[in-house]
Amino acid sequence: MKPTINIGIIGLGIVGCGALKILQENKNEIALKVGSELRVKRIADLDIERERPVEFDRSILTTDAYEIINDPEIDIVVELIGGVKPAGKFIMDAIKNGKHIVTANKALIAQEGHPLLEEAGNRKQDFFFEASVGGGIPIIRPLKICLAGNKIEQVIGIVNGTTNYILTRMSQDGQDFSDALAEAQRLGYAEADPTNDVEGFDAAYKISILASIAFTSRVDVKGVYHEGITKLTKRDTAYARDLGYCVKLLAIAKRNNGAMEIRVHPAFIPQTHPLASVNDVYNGIFVKGNAVGDVMFYGQGAGAMAAGSAVVGDIIDIARNINCGATGRISCTCFENKAMLSMDDVVTKYYIRMQTADRPKVLASIANIFGDNDVSIASVLQKTRGHNGEAEIVWITHEVKEKNFRTALAAIEKLPVVAQVSNWIRVED
Amino acid sequence: MKPTINIGIIGLGIVGCGALKILQENKNEIALKVGSELRVKRIADLDIERERPVEFDRSILTTDAYEIINDPEIDIVVELIGGVKPAGKFIMDAIKNGKHIVTANKALIAQEGHPLLEEAGNRKQDFFFEASVGGGIPIIRPLKICLAGNKIEQVIGIVNGTTNYILTRMSQDGQDFSDALAEAQRLGYAEADPTNDVEGFDAAYKISILASIAFTSRVDVKGVYHEGITKLTKRDTAYARDLGYCVKLLAIAKRNNGAMEIRVHPAFIPQTHPLASVNDVYNGIFVKGNAVGDVMFYGQGAGAMAAGSAVVGDIIDIARNINCGATGRISCTCFENKAMLSMDDVVTKYYIRMQTADRPKVLASIANIFGDNDVSIASVLQKTRGHNGEAEIVWITHEVKEKNFRTALAAIEKLPVVAQVSNWIRVED
Repeated sequence: MKPTINIGIIGLGIVGCGALKILQENKNEIALKVGSELRVKRIADLDIERERPVEFDRSILTTDAYEIINDPEIDIVVELIGGVKPAGKFIMDAIKNGKHIVTANKALIAQEGHPLLEEAGNRKQDFFFEASVGGGIPIIRPLKICLAGNKIEQVIGIVNGTTNYILTRMSQDGQDFSDALAEAQRLGYAEADPTNDVEGFDAAYKISILASIAFTSRVDVKGVYHEGITKLTKRDTAYARDLGYCVKLLAIAKRNNGAMEIRVHPAFIPQTHPLASVNDVYNGIFVKGNAVGDVMFYGQGAGAMAAGSAVVGDIIDIARNINCGATGRISCTCFENKAMLSMDDVVTKYYIRMQTADRPKVLASIANIFGDNDVSIASVLQKTRGHNGEAEIVWITHEVKEKNFRTALAAIEKLPVVAQVSNWIRVED
Repeated sequence: MKPTINIGIIGLGIVGCGALKILQENKNEIALKVGSELRVKRIADLDIERERPVEFDRSILTTDAYEIINDPEIDIVVELIGGVKPAGKFIMDAIKNGKHIVTANKALIAQEGHPLLEEAGNRKQDFFFEASVGGGIPIIRPLKICLAGNKIEQVIGIVNGTTNYILTRMSQDGQDFSDALAEAQRLGYAEADPTNDVEGFDAAYKISILASIAFTSRVDVKGVYHEGITKLTKRDTAYARDLGYCVKLLAIAKRNNGAMEIRVHPAFIPQTHPLASVNDVYNGIFVKGNAVGDVMFYGQGAGAMAAGSAVVGDIIDIARNINCGATGRISCTCFENKAMLSMDDVVTKYYIRMQTADRPKVLASIANIFGDNDVSIASVLQKTRGHNGEAEIVWITHEVKEKNFRTALAAIEKLPVVAQVSNWIRVED
C-alpha cells in the first residue's frame, strides 16, 4: 500500500454526508482499487452542531474552511457548499496551496470555472466535477475519455430532476403545474423557492458544462437561452400525449455550422425517443457522436448517495493519479472559443395552441400569416369549445427559423379573430 | 506537441476500418486532446487486396502481424482479428515487446484474459478493451472509474444486438423466431451461422467481463449458465405483452451472499423497466450500485463506427498515459476469487406455458404439485383451444429456487393430463 491520502470536505450538507458515508461503507474496496487508504482528515461546515445521517468522529469538524485549505497534509479538497461565493475563493486558494479539487458546484463551474480550471491545469493538479451534472450518472468522464474519438454533434439532456418530476405528474396524472410543484415541494424534490429549477437556471448551468466539454469550447452561460416550465398547463401536456409526444424540460446543445446552439426550454419529444421514458426525478443525457451514433446515460440526477457516488469516483480517480504521479493528466479541453448561435437563427418545429372565433375563414387567415413568414404547417387540429363562439386551434409546424416563427406569431396575435395565443412550445424530433 | 505516437492495427475488418476512419476524420481534434499526433504506422491483415470502405496509404499494409509486434517504433497494438487463436499469442508477444494493447476481443478476454492482463499490469503497460462489451457504449471505464466508489450489486444487460433485433421483431411484428432470424441475416445483423449469438455464447463472454469488473473477482466463463432464444415462439412474446412484460435476452450478474450469480437467458421484464425500451440492434446495460442506485447505459452495441469509437477512445486514453508517464495506471482490478452460485440455487420467478386436458381438476392437480415444491403462483390464465379437448394454461410464479421449480416441472410433465410443457421463461422484475 502507498501512503494514506488525506481528504478535506468543505460543506457537510446532503451530498457531503452521502460522500462521507460511501467513503466509510466501501472503505476496503476503495483502498484496494486505489492502493492507498483514503482518510477524511477534516470537515468544515458553518453548522457543526446539527445531527447528520452519518456517524463519524465529530472532532474532525471545524467551522473554518481554511483549516482544510491551509493544512499541508491534505491532498484533496472536496467543495460541497455550492454557490459562487465563497466557494470560488476557497477553491482558488486550495489550488494555490497545491490541493486537488473535487466539486459538485455547477453554478460555480458554469459561471467562473475558467480561471480555476486554468490554474489547476497549469499546476498539473486535478480538478474534477463529475457530480455537477446528472448526479451519479457518469457523463463528464465518458465525454472526455470514452467518447474522445468522436466529434460530438449533440447533447440533449433531461438534467433537472425537480422539473422532470413535475412534468411527469402533469403528464401521467393530469395535474396542473402548481399542484405538481406543491407535491414536489412536499416530497423534498423542490425547494421552497423553486426558481432555480423551474425557470431553467440549473439546467442552463449543466448544459453549459456539458457543451464546453462536448464542443471543446468555452461556453458563457450568460449567452445560454433558458425558459422554464411555469407556463405549461395540463391542456398542453394532454395535447402532447394525444399527438404522440411528451413534454420535457430539455437542455440542448448542438453544433451548428461552426457555432454552438445551446438552449434550455420545455419541448415536445416523440414518445418513442429514448429520453421520453426518463420519468420522475431521473435524469437522462442523450449524446450523438459522429462515430458512436446515439448513446444515452440514465440515472438518478440528485440525492445524497447518487451525487456522493460521483464525488467519491472523482476522489478515487485523483488518488490513483497521485499514486502514479500523473495528476493533471487530463485538464481543461476547451481549445476553442466558438460563437453562440442566436435564438433568432435556431431552426426547430413548434406547437401552438390558440383560442379563436369559431367562424369560417379564421383558420385560413391564420394559415396565411404563417405562410407569409415561411412557416409551413405539419398538422392542425380545431376544436369547438362550448357555445360561446370560441374555438381552440392546435398547430404543429415544420422546421422554421425562430425569428420567422415569432414574426408570424406577433402578426397572428393582432388578428381580431384571435382571442389569445395560449401557449407555444418547441418540438424536437 | 509531444512526439508522435505510433499505432499498429492487426485485423482490418469492419471494426478496424471504423477505427481507422475515425482516426483520420477526427485527427485534428484528437491531436489537441492528446497533445500528440496519432499515426497509424502499419496494418496487418491476411487479405491485403480487398477493397475497404476507407481510404488510406495501402503501402502500410502487411500480411505479417509480427511486422507490427516487433516494430520498436510502434507504441500501441490494436488487435481486431477476434477469436482466441492466434490473437492471444499476438497480444502476449506484443506485451512482452513493451506495447500497450487495445482489443475488442470478448471471447479472448473472457476465456484467456487473465495472463494477458497480468503480464501487462506487471509491466505497467495499458491493456484496454472497452469495445469488447456494448460496442460504442462507455461501460467498462464508467464501472472502473466513475462508479469505483460503489459496491456494484447488479449488472443486467441487453448486450447482444442480433438477438435483441430478433426479439424486437417477434414482439412488435408477431414474427416467429425463424422468420425474424432470416430477416436479421438478410440485413447483416446475424451471421450465416448464428449460433454464437442466438445460443447466448456472445452474451456470456460479455457478462463475464462486466461481472469481473463489477465484483472485482475473476469470472470463469465456463461456469456461466447460458441459454439462447431459439425455443421462443410468437405465442410466448404475445403472452408476455398481454401480461405487461416484454422478452429480452438478459445477461445477468448479481452479488448473492458473497457469491456471484451470473447467467444468460431469455427473460420477461416489465414493460416499465428501463431495459424494456432498448429495441432493435441497440444495447442497454443497467447497473445497480450501493451508492449510485440505478444507472443505465444505452447505445449501438455493434457496427464499424460505434465499436471503432470505443477502440479510438482506448487509444486516446493510452496516448494520454504515455504522455504523462502513467501507463498501467489502472490495471486489472480482480482482487478476489468469489464462488459462482449454482443455477440450482438461483431464486427467480417463472412463466410457464403448457397444454393440458380441458376438464375439471386439471388446474388443481398441477397447482398441487407446484405447492408441494414450494412454488407459489402469482397468476394463472387458462384458455380453451378449439374443440380438441385441450387447454393452454399460462402460469406466473412468485420467487422460488430454480431447483424446486425444476423438480415441480419434472413431476408436472409426468401427469397424464399434461400433454406438454410448451415453454418456460424466467421473469425478472
